[in-house]
Amino acid sequence: MLVTITDFGSQGPYLAQMKAAAMAHAPDLPILDLFTDAPAFNPRAAAYLVSAYAADLPEGAVILGVVDPGVGSERAGIVVHAGGRWFVGPDNGLFALAARHAGGAAAWRIAWTAPDASATFHGRDIFAPVAARLARGERPLGMPLDPATLVGADWPDDLAEIVYVDAYGNCMTGVRANTLPPGARVRIAGHAPARGRTFSDVPEGTPLWYTNANGLVEIAVNAGRADTALGIGVGTPVEIASTP
Amino acid sequence: MLVTITDFGSQGPYLAQMKAAAMAHAPDLPILDLFTDAPAFNPRAAAYLVSAYAADLPEGAVILGVVDPGVGSERAGIVVHAGGRWFVGPDNGLFALAARHAGGAAAWRIAWTAPDASATFHGRDIFAPVAARLARGERPLGMPLDPATLVGADWPDDLAEIVYVDAYGNCMTGVRANTLPPGARVRIAGHAPARGRTFSDVPEGTPLWYTNANGLVEIAVNAGRADTALGIGVGTPVEIASTP
Amino acid sequence: MLVTITDFGSQGPYLAQMKAAAMAHAPDLPILDLFTDAPAFNPRAAAYLVSAYAADLPEGAVILGVVDPGVGSERAGIVVHAGGRWFVGPDNGLFALAARHAGGAAAWRIAWTAPDASATFHGRDIFAPVAARLARGERPLGMPLDPATLVGADWPDDLAEIVYVDAYGNCMTGVRANTLPPGARVRIAGHAPARGRTFSDVPEGTPLWYTNANGLVEIAVNAGRADTALGIGVGTPVEIASTP
Repeated sequence: MLVTITDFGSQGPYLAQMKAAAMAHAPDLPILDLFTDAPAFNPRAAAYLVSAYAADLPEGAVILGVVDPGVGSERAGIVVHAGGRWFVGPDNGLFALAARHAGGAAAWRIAWTAPDASATFHGRDIFAPVAARLARGERPLGMPLDPATLVGADWPDDLAEIVYVDAYGNCMTGVRANTLPPGARVRIAGHAPARGRTFSDVPEGTPLWYTNANGLVEIAVNAGRADTALGIGVGTPVEIASTP
Repeated sequence: MLVTITDFGSQGPYLAQMKAAAMAHAPDLPILDLFTDAPAFNPRAAAYLVSAYAADLPEGAVILGVVDPGVGSERAGIVVHAGGRWFVGPDNGLFALAARHAGGAAAWRIAWTAPDASATFHGRDIFAPVAARLARGERPLGMPLDPATLVGADWPDDLAEIVYVDAYGNCMTGVRANTLPPGARVRIAGHAPARGRTFSDVPEGTPLWYTNANGLVEIAVNAGRADTALGIGVGTPVEIASTP
Repeated sequence: MLVTITDFGSQGPYLAQMKAAAMAHAPDLPILDLFTDAPAFNPRAAAYLVSAYAADLPEGAVILGVVDPGVGSERAGIVVHAGGRWFVGPDNGLFALAARHAGGAAAWRIAWTAPDASATFHGRDIFAPVAARLARGERPLGMPLDPATLVGADWPDDLAEIVYVDAYGNCMTGVRANTLPPGARVRIAGHAPARGRTFSDVPEGTPLWYTNANGLVEIAVNAGRADTALGIGVGTPVEIASTP
């Protein structure tokens, strides 16, 4: 299974072009588009999403991640293997947390490039073919790298910021809820939402925080939009206090 | 064939996660996303869309419908069989009209749940696996229910409101055109659009109503957007007069 | 492989309905959605995109193109064969440049129609079944046409206008960069962007033009949006001067 995580948006040709390039190497490969709206130009925020959402993909899945503001510059292309899954994309931190949280990661610098690769679309011309070949069992791995040398190796284990706002206005943080002590409290933008298990645990229009379906601390408003109601978005800092 | 109808939007991870959960049970199952923009938090309006748009899906299709503002509360999960198709999702009325219009419906309360099901994402953790197993011929049906006891059993056969606005601004009602007498007239928001067969039957900029490609009464403006031109949207009432 | 190019948007039922109609004839056919946001109601601008983006699809690909403001009027449905690929859709110019640029095109007027075809959705009721049958090797071609009689036969080889704005605000023209002399200069909306190879060739916030990954002249702003920064969009004229 090939899984795409991009900031390409849900429209336009790039995602389909990338998938066509993958299908040229693996015609019957199932492909799922997990995120088309990863934080644009923001591989750091995206890295915490990638880690949380790759974790429930099947073992052997190949994650093709392209949030790549540096395309065309000197940044390397990499393959990472961690937690039984493969990650293919730019060395800009996008896979740093997935590698660290899964443990036992290995990494390679991609040496392959299409003979006629463009300067601006490595997703189509380099990463998709490499990912498809990995998915079909080939090992176009390139030069081994020490994972500790990858961009993002010095980023924190959890990111106390909003990293994603979903279609309903629910705001995910980069904090894994299972790292918090019992009784932890959340503050954001002057609000102190109560902890809930699900939306209907609080009255309509009231904010709450809860462990989302992928284990991240998430802030929502029952029957409302947390982003507009609380004035928060990607990058808004979150304070987490472990005691009253 | 598995067909999704959700209010998840066209971006974000939820749809792909739901499909990955289905593919874990049925890897080669073709999946189509019919609506990602069903009326949000509005299973009643969505129910009239589901009925009209399920009707031209092939027999045997499994419709996985998730417009589910009550997720995490006590509402049941159900399977409905009607018109040769299966419907899987919450018991909140979403399938009530599809069951009634097709006739001869049977229903079951889902008894199965993933061991580690989340509180907020039953689409992934309950409905998708059940739908995929149905699509591959298993019958994980649960406890038989009387369809007359389902939520929505008391809703009208047709809903004289806008239930959906498409990407062009065309506005669908919940009224099946073949239930109207000849010469029926439509009024909406102070306008009395003429009946047309297709857009070009009226001058550019002029509103019209017609039977859409799925049999619903729909209001449009030739070469324009009916939603903004007439100031209408989901929930706007429509008056239908059968005589001059 | 079936490839869709439409102005249906990324939401709503139409694309899935069209794909379901194709799958009824070719259940295992891989389908990619290349554009869901081709210039709406604008087959002329779309035609330059179709030509540039069909060119890197595999030989044998069937492109199902539906940008069809005249649906329900008397415009014909056509099949075009050019450059080893098939094109199916309305005779409104959408395939005119793809046919001309590839050379050696042949064309047919579609004679087939579904017995119960709707007036407003030929994509589902005529074009998708024809495209699917072509993809599986049938030849439901209809009446031969002289390509020189197709709508768009008199359009220019390159269109010196913005024809598409992508999700990042990058603005594609309908001009193939390899038709320009060395040293060609671009002016748009009072700006004279420098030529670059990739975004990072200019400082952040600075406009540039370059050959995009499909060979078109494209205007962007490094780490910004060219559409809003320069006040340009689909239809904005571009001046290209071949000498200083």
